Amino acid sequence: MIVVIEAGVAPSPPTIAKGVDARRNHILDAFEVCIQRTGFHRTTMQDVAREAGMSAGNLYRYFSSKEALVSGLIERDRERFSADFMNVARSSDVMGSFVALGRKHFLETPRERCVQFMEIWAEASRNPQVAEMCAAVDKEVNDFMVAILEAAKASGQIPPSVDSAAVITVLSAMGDGMFTRRALEPDFDVEDGFRLLVNVMDALMSGKIPLDRPLPVMSDSPGSPPVSEEKPHVRG
Amino acid sequence: MIVVIEAGVAPSPPTIAKGVDARRNHILDAFEVCIQRTGFHRTTMQDVAREAGMSAGNLYRYFSSKEALVSGLIERDRERFSADFMNVARSSDVMGSFVALGRKHFLETPRERCVQFMEIWAEASRNPQVAEMCAAVDKEVNDFMVAILEAAKASGQIPPSVDSAAVITVLSAMGDGMFTRRALEPDFDVEDGFRLLVNVMDALMSGKIPLDRPLPVMSDSPGSPPVSEEKPHVRG
Repeated sequence: MIVVIEAGVAPSPPTIAKGVDARRNHILDAFEVCIQRTGFHRTTMQDVAREAGMSAGNLYRYFSSKEALVSGLIERDRERFSADFMNVARSSDVMGSFVALGRKHFLETPRERCVQFMEIWAEASRNPQVAEMCAAVDKEVNDFMVAILEAAKASGQIPPSVDSAAVITVLSAMGDGMFTRRALEPDFDVEDGFRLLVNVMDALMSGKIPLDRPLPVMSDSPGSPPVSEEKPHVRG
Repeated sequence: MIVVIEAGVAPSPPTIAKGVDARRNHILDAFEVCIQRTGFHRTTMQDVAREAGMSAGNLYRYFSSKEALVSGLIERDRERFSADFMNVARSSDVMGSFVALGRKHFLETPRERCVQFMEIWAEASRNPQVAEMCAAVDKEVNDFMVAILEAAKASGQIPPSVDSAAVITVLSAMGDGMFTRRALEPDFDVEDGFRLLVNVMDALMSGKIPLDRPLPVMSDSPGSPPVSEEKPHVRG
């Protein structure tokens, strides 16, 4: 393992804090298993304590509520994503490392994680507190990916004409769609899905795919034919 | 409205059946409102009856269980999708109508429908019965879209080299991702997201994005440099 030592880095936390972190991680792992097995809503603090092999009272010493567990889970993901992206950003082959990271997230991640995403997304779409936590992580991931493309531009790995933000919007949407397909179809060919994603990414990064075209003008504008469900163009 | 009369079409169902259909539709609308507001799991038959303005006893005459409601909802979506796709397939401008249909599904659909999708996806990812229903609809929609592209090829609207199945896999993933973003971010710019989707679609349909390239060979193969989280290439 290559360790990068940077000036100004804070010293390691004392052993007792490491023990707390390990225990918190263990509990969050148990929480993930419960969400994947039972669903977000039906998971109780008691379920998590049982899965973690501890008493409910002990669990509450680390997480005071289910909201605190969700918050802890999302924060842990954020830290892991950040570490992953830092590795990509430090790489001498930014685009190669970006694909390697995609491989990790799509191919090496078990399907159960995708099932968990569906649960978290459903919760986030109706719970503003969870939505806010997810949005903060999504924004950080998005900004990191855009910064990676900008770095790749600066080092001449992709042409300057590439619209980094637009490319990342497209790739993120495709990525979310891949997670959805995996969750919904246990036999979804994720290897082929990821291959298609990389093909699209390569084309977008080459700058040959224009992403700046406006939507075609439809129906209500004078001069263009009306197109709607009620008025299909009927052939013959 | 242009009505297409086809030989061999079954006669309209009698009025009583139409009344039952209207009542079932009304109940399914109420079920959708409940899912969007309360979530799938927390919605009870009593909630649906209340939202539909009927007694629980009366509701059970139409749907015997929550599973029957889900089944009814998914079946209704399937019928609507089929009707939409039939209109596209009949159009003299297949690709223009395809974009118009996308506009309907992405821009004219209220955000609440996306929230509902998150709930159904979460349920489908852990409930094999719901998964099976969703998979049947997804397969039908997928096959329909592939058939539309094949028809567009046959009529010379897109080049024969386009891999219809691969293109639809990419567009479906992006579409699912758009629904996810809308559900999770109430201020997501869906108009711009759809614009990007159409840009990518145009490039895919023109054959400009090659989708037949294999994944680059990584890490464990002899001769290629190892790339992993633990061993980043550190610059300088």
